Amino acid sequence: MALQVKIKSIGNYFPKNIITSEALEKQFKLSLGEIARKNGVISRHWSDKETCIDIGKNALDNALKKADLKIKDIDCIVWAAGTAAQLIPCTASLVAQKYGAESSGIPCFDINATCLSSLFAVETLSYLVEAGKYRRVAIVCGEQPSLALDKKNLITTTLFGDAGCAIILEKGDNTETSRIIDSKFETFAEFSQLTRLKGGASILPGYQFNKENKSEYFFQMDGEKIYKYAAKNMPIFLKNLLLRNNLSLDDIKMVVPHQSSLLSLKLMKKKLGITEGKMFVNIEKLGNTVAASIPLALMEAIEKGLVERGDKVLLLGTSAGLTLGAMIIEY
Amino acid sequence: MALQVKIKSIGNYFPKNIITSEALEKQFKLSLGEIARKNGVISRHWSDKETCIDIGKNALDNALKKADLKIKDIDCIVWAAGTAAQLIPCTASLVAQKYGAESSGIPCFDINATCLSSLFAVETLSYLVEAGKYRRVAIVCGEQPSLALDKKNLITTTLFGDAGCAIILEKGDNTETSRIIDSKFETFAEFSQLTRLKGGASILPGYQFNKENKSEYFFQMDGEKIYKYAAKNMPIFLKNLLLRNNLSLDDIKMVVPHQSSLLSLKLMKKKLGITEGKMFVNIEKLGNTVAASIPLALMEAIEKGLVERGDKVLLLGTSAGLTLGAMIIEY
Repeated sequence: MALQVKIKSIGNYFPKNIITSEALEKQFKLSLGEIARKNGVISRHWSDKETCIDIGKNALDNALKKADLKIKDIDCIVWAAGTAAQLIPCTASLVAQKYGAESSGIPCFDINATCLSSLFAVETLSYLVEAGKYRRVAIVCGEQPSLALDKKNLITTTLFGDAGCAIILEKGDNTETSRIIDSKFETFAEFSQLTRLKGGASILPGYQFNKENKSEYFFQMDGEKIYKYAAKNMPIFLKNLLLRNNLSLDDIKMVVPHQSSLLSLKLMKKKLGITEGKMFVNIEKLGNTVAASIPLALMEAIEKGLVERGDKVLLLGTSAGLTLGAMIIEY
Repeated sequence: MALQVKIKSIGNYFPKNIITSEALEKQFKLSLGEIARKNGVISRHWSDKETCIDIGKNALDNALKKADLKIKDIDCIVWAAGTAAQLIPCTASLVAQKYGAESSGIPCFDINATCLSSLFAVETLSYLVEAGKYRRVAIVCGEQPSLALDKKNLITTTLFGDAGCAIILEKGDNTETSRIIDSKFETFAEFSQLTRLKGGASILPGYQFNKENKSEYFFQMDGEKIYKYAAKNMPIFLKNLLLRNNLSLDDIKMVVPHQSSLLSLKLMKKKLGITEGKMFVNIEKLGNTVAASIPLALMEAIEKGLVERGDKVLLLGTSAGLTLGAMIIEY
């Protein structure tokens, strides 16, 4: 059942500090251009002063401005990111705090599914918007993976970037075709430790940090295993989603994937049989921006005129869990 | 608009290790019975071996058993707790992992609003169950606040307890009156730092832990300010919720509050004008169990025969944020 819910606007924000792959190539003693050849990233933002709260708040400001709305026009603020500011309270309330009295009373909570947090949040909150529980919801994402990177780890250090993104959802009216056609998620928890940040929460609290367990307080991933699993299983996963909506890839104007890494995107494109120019890639200047990745790519595709109102778009990605996720929207 | 969504079952789990207030009174050099007189807690569970994943999984096992279901009958697993196991992946997937291949493919994500996580999750997921997106959802909560307590802080150490709770939601049929009548949340973010655990995530990562900032890696709260604010604002908040449903407290069979502390519950009872025996309190043997608190209290009220199918129940509480929340259900 399609939901008559519209992406009213998408806002973005990038921390000012830019780290080029050239600089990292010098640091890791790699040849010029080697990083981009492997993961596709030429430069990325790494915040040096702003917190994830600032990053998310600035993205929300941008989304509000584009929609000509004020924070008081929002009925619910949902933080949807792999990054959290504090363990308590939820990060959504720390974003709301930045708006002062204007945000007073707006319910705040967080949704977390790492790289798919924003897609899970769009699915979940769309049902509340559709039912009229909330007229308008802000899904806010402020990713700061740079803080979780072991800067001696070549693979992860060169891949991730900080960025913010915010989506405003509202109920569409009968004159519009904008809607969320369908979405699907599947978690394969046997692979839940392939992507992990073990230290900081309750299994290994921050106060247990020491020289011996140091590595557990930084992000670790077995990227190759994830890409292979995703490339193997995404085709049938997507086929089922398209089939149950009587759609094929031919009906899709643009595939907007989570910008996991260029190698994995190329593999996915081949496995899915996506024709040239139909998969949007913007990893070069951003890197993998976790849950900000899909909405940022969608926003750029829209701004470049590659996606227009009424076009069918396929959003898809994988996240730690291991979760496969996809959503078909009519923008 | 009421949702025809039914609480199919509620499961619980308590870590074996019990800490009596008597033992804590000796430790803090207090007179016998002083702790219970202040916060109402006679004993609480503090897990010594089990993780929050074990606690949540055991509670889910109990809920599945009561509903005569297997994990494969669940369409979505949502972790809804103030406690998270790791920063990555989401804790729901770590619970799913415990079920092995049986849980393969079930989507997993986390919802966090500290003490109101479970109530937010019930509200949010009910819309997806109502719309038929998921037939049946498991909301799993494994709270382990004991790990976040500065054991030299008398107020917080004597108040909190570890516990697990799981709720299975499913679509009701036309022969049943079970439904979610209405719910409401309001966040007042100017008070977002009154309850906080700053260290461990991105504002103050685990790897920055040292002797000087140690206190920031433990839970801190200004309980009195929260209770006063809640007691002042909850009456009008609740009045609005009841009014818009043409209900009064007389229509409510039982008020089931978040077991924040006995003092705050007494203050709330007085301010709301709740008659004797109509507010369920079970803080004595559990302490404040964060987001497990409301569903555990509801479960005990049901088991004691104080709430039966068809009875109207008012669930309410406050959480870090600062958020006020309430839900009216017909059990």
